[in-house]
Amino acid sequence: MLAEIITIGDEILIGQIVDTNSAWIAKEFNTLGIKIRQITSVSDTAEQIKDAVNKAMKANDIILITGGLGPTKDDITKQTLCDLFNTSLVFDSIAYDNVVSIFSKKGYPILESNKQQAFLPQSCIPLYNTCGTAPGMLFNVDNKLIVSMPGVPYEMKTMMQLDVIPRLKSKFQFPVIVHRTLQTAGVGESFISEKLVKIEAALPEHIKLAYLPSLGIVRLRLTGIGKNEKLLQEEIDMYTSNIKDELGVVVFAEGDISLAACVCSILKEKKQTITLAESCTGGYVSSLIVQIPGCSEYFMGSTIAYSYEAKEMELDVNPDTLIKYGAVSENCINEMLLGAIKKFNTNCAIAISGIAGPDGGTPDKPVGTIYIGVVINKRQKVKRFNFENNRERNIERAAMAALNMLRLELLNEF
Amino acid sequence: MLAEIITIGDEILIGQIVDTNSAWIAKEFNTLGIKIRQITSVSDTAEQIKDAVNKAMKANDIILITGGLGPTKDDITKQTLCDLFNTSLVFDSIAYDNVVSIFSKKGYPILESNKQQAFLPQSCIPLYNTCGTAPGMLFNVDNKLIVSMPGVPYEMKTMMQLDVIPRLKSKFQFPVIVHRTLQTAGVGESFISEKLVKIEAALPEHIKLAYLPSLGIVRLRLTGIGKNEKLLQEEIDMYTSNIKDELGVVVFAEGDISLAACVCSILKEKKQTITLAESCTGGYVSSLIVQIPGCSEYFMGSTIAYSYEAKEMELDVNPDTLIKYGAVSENCINEMLLGAIKKFNTNCAIAISGIAGPDGGTPDKPVGTIYIGVVINKRQKVKRFNFENNRERNIERAAMAALNMLRLELLNEF
Repeated sequence: MLAEIITIGDEILIGQIVDTNSAWIAKEFNTLGIKIRQITSVSDTAEQIKDAVNKAMKANDIILITGGLGPTKDDITKQTLCDLFNTSLVFDSIAYDNVVSIFSKKGYPILESNKQQAFLPQSCIPLYNTCGTAPGMLFNVDNKLIVSMPGVPYEMKTMMQLDVIPRLKSKFQFPVIVHRTLQTAGVGESFISEKLVKIEAALPEHIKLAYLPSLGIVRLRLTGIGKNEKLLQEEIDMYTSNIKDELGVVVFAEGDISLAACVCSILKEKKQTITLAESCTGGYVSSLIVQIPGCSEYFMGSTIAYSYEAKEMELDVNPDTLIKYGAVSENCINEMLLGAIKKFNTNCAIAISGIAGPDGGTPDKPVGTIYIGVVINKRQKVKRFNFENNRERNIERAAMAALNMLRLELLNEF
Repeated sequence: MLAEIITIGDEILIGQIVDTNSAWIAKEFNTLGIKIRQITSVSDTAEQIKDAVNKAMKANDIILITGGLGPTKDDITKQTLCDLFNTSLVFDSIAYDNVVSIFSKKGYPILESNKQQAFLPQSCIPLYNTCGTAPGMLFNVDNKLIVSMPGVPYEMKTMMQLDVIPRLKSKFQFPVIVHRTLQTAGVGESFISEKLVKIEAALPEHIKLAYLPSLGIVRLRLTGIGKNEKLLQEEIDMYTSNIKDELGVVVFAEGDISLAACVCSILKEKKQTITLAESCTGGYVSSLIVQIPGCSEYFMGSTIAYSYEAKEMELDVNPDTLIKYGAVSENCINEMLLGAIKKFNTNCAIAISGIAGPDGGTPDKPVGTIYIGVVINKRQKVKRFNFENNRERNIERAAMAALNMLRLELLNEF
């Protein structure tokens, strides 16, 4: 089973946006066992869209198109597909009701351009959009499936998950593919690969291990392909548990769970409560915790103390400490932890203070120097991290390091 | 002048990596005035590489290829291009010296596979790699330029900047392309397009307007193509100012500036100071402000008050207010604003409280109900927003709405 992804949009071809839709679809299709033969990006012109679809139809069974379905003049995918497949637009009342419902919720009037979004090619199966006004379309032409979806990643992903993938699964017989993801924090790709040399060498032909690194996190993905699902699951189970045994606490989760979600589930399970005292991360770590539904069980609030004054007033940091050691110091972090715990009456806390950059570095404490502290039931631990020279990346890495420190200390404690 | 980018690599087609090379090259070419007609990603197979290059040569003047030049067995781009262009590999001593120098620096022995990297197609102009072992190649076939470069982003970018772009500039006369981006907040794509109907209809053939929406933000991009740069700039200036006049305060920036950066520059310019009282956004809005370097001039800290108790203790919200109106109410926001200002002694503040979901909705206040308040010099304003049923998106939309409210009130005040 071969497929091609066609992404449509001038913004891709002038480099204004990076096409992330293709990688997302490719990953999903890979899980299903559908091989992506080619990814093609073309501009919002009828000639190029037609040319790309025609060529793709010659070499593939499935063609997935994203983009060009918006209400504005430059969006021409729908009309172009109509022309290509010799069909015409007809009014679709379900799509129209969807437009009406979205606009009435927002309290906006419905404009002529929005009404146009409710017209769909007569020969297509409509893919109703649960998150936006532009419906998708599924065409069955010459025994090929052509799917056209909005380019907005969230709308496309929802449409794929709720509608397109279930349709594909019911229509085609796919080989059995089993994926298993393990997530690690706090160590690098080469450390892990060194540890797994023997396990990797022993992997059979039909099972592959991939390393997927991001800042502070390395995901490991085992992929097996076969015919007998039960047997394949058992094999993958075995290799998964071998890897877990070898890596120990470095593995924080099986499956696609964020580090914040993992930490939150431990806090919840162990009935711990947490507050954060954030300086250079400016509330980012707290916001990762608040992203987890149900966080009110263990999280009441945090203090963002960016200035010296805020650290003194809000977290009872001693002015002498700031003068003598500076805000980026073990001493300051220790006092921030105490102040945070006292303020929110929790038994756990995280404190972070550092030089995120681009300015403010010194020879002793260059940009990227970040102190992170964790306290659990009065047991405090502070570590110094030396990251790099990029503000955004330093904030992300500090957040991951802080959450991982808390995780390891929680495992230590309970 | 038309070009196509071909990225080669199985890792792209299974979604393991996002192809960021294409967007980078496209942006560079766009600045030069070379139009990217298509971006194509294919796997590491000779047949597909040949097919993609042949097709690209029919429709373009320049073909840029990245990937498949590594020392391992799966890297076959060099041999495939040799076959395609009827040439053979010859030893290149400069490329070999480069391999030797890199390996001796690392203290590694040179393997046979590395020696192979010093062989290059006889008919190509070598593009020596200053950051890695794989040289690039430039072919001139049938009056088309075909450039093959490594897939490692850093190596490719350096080769483009030091070698490929200067060669193109000396060889071709490029058309002039002018881009201008305007960013808007707080209104939808269709609202804007309705407002711009006349301006869009009056745009000449050689100037295009594109809409690029994300949560709470719509970017507008004017692109003009022509021969006379001064004339084109003047035309784009005129249309830009027409659009700005038509849209008014909805436009928050010209160019690629984030809404947070825009708000921060106003705070800085007007010498205002700010604090935030965040409930359902959990510190996210503060973290967007802290991402802007130099924020210590106007930002000292924030309060994340997630629980009722934290709102009472940290922001002096009256318990009666919480009982009578709830935390998601205009009354609570008004008190949060006062408490925040008092605590950090600033003259501006933002307060946010809402039901981000997935639980906690009521008939009166369904999930997505978020109150946002802004105070500037004692003038308070509170608005209720009705977003949707997705926690992560509600947090993002609340953040954008809050920053935009502050921006509009700052413009109102000064």
